[in-house]
Amino acid sequence: MSSVVILMGSKSDLPFVHKITAALDELGIAHEERVASAHKSARYLLDLLAQYEASGAVGAYITVAGRSNALSGMVDASVTAPVIACPPYSEKFGGADLYSSLRMPSGVAPAVVLDPVAAALLVAKILGLADAGLREQVAAAQREQREKLIQAELEAGVIWLKHVTSL
Amino acid sequence: MSSVVILMGSKSDLPFVHKITAALDELGIAHEERVASAHKSARYLLDLLAQYEASGAVGAYITVAGRSNALSGMVDASVTAPVIACPPYSEKFGGADLYSSLRMPSGVAPAVVLDPVAAALLVAKILGLADAGLREQVAAAQREQREKLIQAELEAGVIWLKHVTSL
Amino acid sequence: MSSVVILMGSKSDLPFVHKITAALDELGIAHEERVASAHKSARYLLDLLAQYEASGAVGAYITVAGRSNALSGMVDASVTAPVIACPPYSEKFGGADLYSSLRMPSGVAPAVVLDPVAAALLVAKILGLADAGLREQVAAAQREQREKLIQAELEAGVIWLKHVTSL
Amino acid sequence: MSSVVILMGSKSDLPFVHKITAALDELGIAHEERVASAHKSARYLLDLLAQYEASGAVGAYITVAGRSNALSGMVDASVTAPVIACPPYSEKFGGADLYSSLRMPSGVAPAVVLDPVAAALLVAKILGLADAGLREQVAAAQREQREKLIQAELEAGVIWLKHVTSL
Amino acid sequence: MSSVVILMGSKSDLPFVHKITAALDELGIAHEERVASAHKSARYLLDLLAQYEASGAVGAYITVAGRSNALSGMVDASVTAPVIACPPYSEKFGGADLYSSLRMPSGVAPAVVLDPVAAALLVAKILGLADAGLREQVAAAQREQREKLIQAELEAGVIWLKHVTSL
Amino acid sequence: MSSVVILMGSKSDLPFVHKITAALDELGIAHEERVASAHKSARYLLDLLAQYEASGAVGAYITVAGRSNALSGMVDASVTAPVIACPPYSEKFGGADLYSSLRMPSGVAPAVVLDPVAAALLVAKILGLADAGLREQVAAAQREQREKLIQAELEAGVIWLKHVTSL
Amino acid sequence: MSSVVILMGSKSDLPFVHKITAALDELGIAHEERVASAHKSARYLLDLLAQYEASGAVGAYITVAGRSNALSGMVDASVTAPVIACPPYSEKFGGADLYSSLRMPSGVAPAVVLDPVAAALLVAKILGLADAGLREQVAAAQREQREKLIQAELEAGVIWLKHVTSL
Amino acid sequence: MSSVVILMGSKSDLPFVHKITAALDELGIAHEERVASAHKSARYLLDLLAQYEASGAVGAYITVAGRSNALSGMVDASVTAPVIACPPYSEKFGGADLYSSLRMPSGVAPAVVLDPVAAALLVAKILGLADAGLREQVAAAQREQREKLIQAELEAGVIWLKHVTSL
Repeated sequence: MSSVVILMGSKSDLPFVHKITAALDELGIAHEERVASAHKSARYLLDLLAQYEASGAVGAYITVAGRSNALSGMVDASVTAPVIACPPYSEKFGGADLYSSLRMPSGVAPAVVLDPVAAALLVAKILGLADAGLREQVAAAQREQREKLIQAELEAGVIWLKHVTSL
Repeated sequence: MSSVVILMGSKSDLPFVHKITAALDELGIAHEERVASAHKSARYLLDLLAQYEASGAVGAYITVAGRSNALSGMVDASVTAPVIACPPYSEKFGGADLYSSLRMPSGVAPAVVLDPVAAALLVAKILGLADAGLREQVAAAQREQREKLIQAELEAGVIWLKHVTSL
Repeated sequence: MSSVVILMGSKSDLPFVHKITAALDELGIAHEERVASAHKSARYLLDLLAQYEASGAVGAYITVAGRSNALSGMVDASVTAPVIACPPYSEKFGGADLYSSLRMPSGVAPAVVLDPVAAALLVAKILGLADAGLREQVAAAQREQREKLIQAELEAGVIWLKHVTSL
Repeated sequence: MSSVVILMGSKSDLPFVHKITAALDELGIAHEERVASAHKSARYLLDLLAQYEASGAVGAYITVAGRSNALSGMVDASVTAPVIACPPYSEKFGGADLYSSLRMPSGVAPAVVLDPVAAALLVAKILGLADAGLREQVAAAQREQREKLIQAELEAGVIWLKHVTSL
Repeated sequence: MSSVVILMGSKSDLPFVHKITAALDELGIAHEERVASAHKSARYLLDLLAQYEASGAVGAYITVAGRSNALSGMVDASVTAPVIACPPYSEKFGGADLYSSLRMPSGVAPAVVLDPVAAALLVAKILGLADAGLREQVAAAQREQREKLIQAELEAGVIWLKHVTSL
Repeated sequence: MSSVVILMGSKSDLPFVHKITAALDELGIAHEERVASAHKSARYLLDLLAQYEASGAVGAYITVAGRSNALSGMVDASVTAPVIACPPYSEKFGGADLYSSLRMPSGVAPAVVLDPVAAALLVAKILGLADAGLREQVAAAQREQREKLIQAELEAGVIWLKHVTSL
Repeated sequence: MSSVVILMGSKSDLPFVHKITAALDELGIAHEERVASAHKSARYLLDLLAQYEASGAVGAYITVAGRSNALSGMVDASVTAPVIACPPYSEKFGGADLYSSLRMPSGVAPAVVLDPVAAALLVAKILGLADAGLREQVAAAQREQREKLIQAELEAGVIWLKHVTSL
Repeated sequence: MSSVVILMGSKSDLPFVHKITAALDELGIAHEERVASAHKSARYLLDLLAQYEASGAVGAYITVAGRSNALSGMVDASVTAPVIACPPYSEKFGGADLYSSLRMPSGVAPAVVLDPVAAALLVAKILGLADAGLREQVAAAQREQREKLIQAELEAGVIWLKHVTSL
């Protein structure tokens, strides 16, 4: 069965990565975390990716790199599996770092997702194409959040008591 | 075999959509284009999505909507297949429309890709997980662009004649 | 008599909504709060709006949705009553979420107001067109804030003692 | 019957104002255009507004002022009818002029709408609360744009021939 | 002798105004503070300005108004004395409020200065044109800050001990 | 009588400077243009300023420098007369160059004015403090633009024929 | 003697690169241009850099890459010679691509210079540390631009005829 | 041997400067700190630079100036050695001060580096061109950070236990 590889540019990204892995664990999706920098350990990163590609066992990569994000594009151009860029947000310069994840050269196509839990959900949707159980989990999660929203009106009590018909 | 559905918020997005479909055609990926607005024909859109979901035949959705992009999030929350948001770029307000594609509520996870050709490539990577031929096409395209870059130095003639060894 | 419906995209928007309802209460305007997401419970939202529209009893909608605001536009395109978009402000990305409330497609026209108390005041102005008492309340509030400003100079004592004539 | 007053800060805003008046004419809404600057002819503006308010005949004001928009807030604080700020867009400084229409002091509540046609539509929704014919016109326009979107798929021919069922 | 009038749009601007008045006091420049809103008490403001203009006793106005600054432009268009716009800084929307002080219509020319102490210094430069004593105070302050910078190198001890000649 | 010195950082700023001088000429204000760069000919600039200051004949400086504006601050810190920074606008980077004119160190206070004609008007207001004829010219210009705005309604004919009383 | 290597991420950057090489040619600095993408031909780039580093013949690298600039950081982390990032400017998203050249991870230090001619000048300053002739060329260029600015006043004729003494 | 001169615009920049000097100390690079303002003590600064230039002993300048950075450009235009602009970051106005360090006039070429430690590293790369020991230190630092990244995977224990081969 295929697995997810999370690549982070620095050990300092671990707290952010753990939000992704917690969500993957809840979905029962196997994952593996690696540290490699497109800037500082590029050759190591390329070797790592070559090994993963040869294994044929990776269903998706999630790349986590702050500031100027070179990691997501370099990984995407090196593998045939889909790559999800999930950069940790920085408040500096009005959040302009984001553009380094989005403004890719031609032929490079990482999928940008801002929220770490959403990155896990996107993985589930991708792997779910070939895994009916996972697909059903996604559908169940969507149903649940829909119902939760509708329930919110009833549960909230006093505020929600007035009904449309009694307007 | 699974297909791709491209949803656009307005007929005026067709020229942009054609850049995506041209790239999908080159990759041999079947696709279907639909026009539906999350704002103006929301119920029609939801019915359409319900039909597609019931068919089980859609491998990925690509959503194309300018200005405030409600389409991508609404589609993503309604289907179990992965959704790629590929908003047509507007220069207005420093390109701020982009954030309406990125800043999703919890549990909603469209993958943002700015370039229409890249959106097609991401689809190929996703569908390629279950399609060795498609995966090989992606690998070939990546090899080709790598070789093209390397060839560029030789072909450019005069400029590239000087060699490292003769520095 | 017509009433105001406040639609919020998530229960977490309640503290912000309460600033609006407090201002509506002070003006004596009846209101009703509902939770529905344009992304996650879109069909429920459309059904809700259809009921409200059939009732003919809603004088204005106030829509409260953070991040990418799909709610305001979808509500506006679905009802004939005026819709006021009052998105809770987020500091992220230089406040760029705001544009998702403003950059509407053609034929969709929510009125954007940033301050929750101001949203209530705008409702009072709209409903006041057919309600002389409410209109007089608005006029009184305007007079009061004008007088308060003028009084500020006299009350502030030492600082304001010097008069134009004695310059 | 109540009418709409369009106030512009400069004669040079007339081409933009004409987009609003064309839309109002199509909806059959009476309107009147005035030129007055909050900066340069403020007392004249205040006198004008006092006359309009005394007449009790204005259902809504639309304020059109570029650069730093002082007009919308000053009008809103001076009248009990709703005020729609519809500032002509400037590309300068990333469109930052927009904030001068949005960042109002407490107790001032103009409704910001970017598109001139949308400003007319919002007026129709406001006046439609007391005018069933106008309300029905709004509903018809909404139905029409919904149907147009759905028709788009059939009319577009070759592209739209493939059906969901035949996927 | 001419005096300075500080106009603030709201009493809540007093702490910011006090930074200006402290600097004016140090320079021995007479000043007077008034509260008037271009939005909410516009007619009162215009009457105030008419009185000041008739008195012929005002050498400069300093206008202090946050959010959308209508005050500075309205004052500038109503008086012949120079007007200094000194808006209190807000972090919201990347500080975009600033543009409401800068983007004036034709024929309106307030001088924008961000720092409250600098606003007082600019007043001293303006009034100093006709007041040799004040001009000498400005020159002395400039000399002092120049000498302070040069002294900084000697005073800082260990760090500054190495001299150019001993490089 | 005092005169105005316009300092520009580069000869390429001449077309922009001519908009200022045309407005000064119309007001009958004597002026002199100099080219000096705070970056590239700083010592020459300082010598020039020392001469001007010794002459005691300069009533105001207008500094014109694009990109990173070092000129305005350096001039302001070197002279006792008021300095007006009037930077030529560049569209690059969302107009961010503007901040180099505004974000001065402590004790440096150039007055920022974006429009070249407005810079001339501010000079007239400053010099007008000691020149009743010039002050009257400013007042006349303000009256004229007020009347022009009011005349605009009558002159525009068909559009303005409807009167408040006949609403 | 050491040489300069210009690395560009794409052949499409050649027109921009030629502005750099023209300036280097004028300074008599030897240079070599290479095409290599940090994203798409990363291993080739690393091999190239290893060869250059082994040669010990490179005095500085200039990296030219638009959109998300991964090239500059990857080169900088791989070589001991100084690296100058000179990204071609794009108007998109308010020029936000710039941040991908500036926001480097710890231990990575490319020098960002926006203007291509300035990048060549910086190279001259760096290589000039060990090359008195080159250093003198830089000094001569600085003298020349200083004199050109001063000459501008005399040459401009009518405009510059008035002298300080005759004010 | 050549040395580094750090020029700061204000004594208040010392804490930021100390981050640079700590990194220079670790690399064994001699340095000297000076305080001089391009705005307020420009002539003193020019004299200082003339002395340094005459000494021929400076290998690089690092300029540290916040808000509107005039220092870096003025220093760069006055010396033949390379100048590194390392402005202390301010959150105000979305970090827009940065552009005052980047948007230089023609013929002025400071190298912008945001991180103070990176500024020291760039100095080491520049001085290393003529100092094999320093060059080796840079290479060692690069090797070390590469190895640290690779070690991170082994050291992190539980998380890194799964190997590529066992996927």
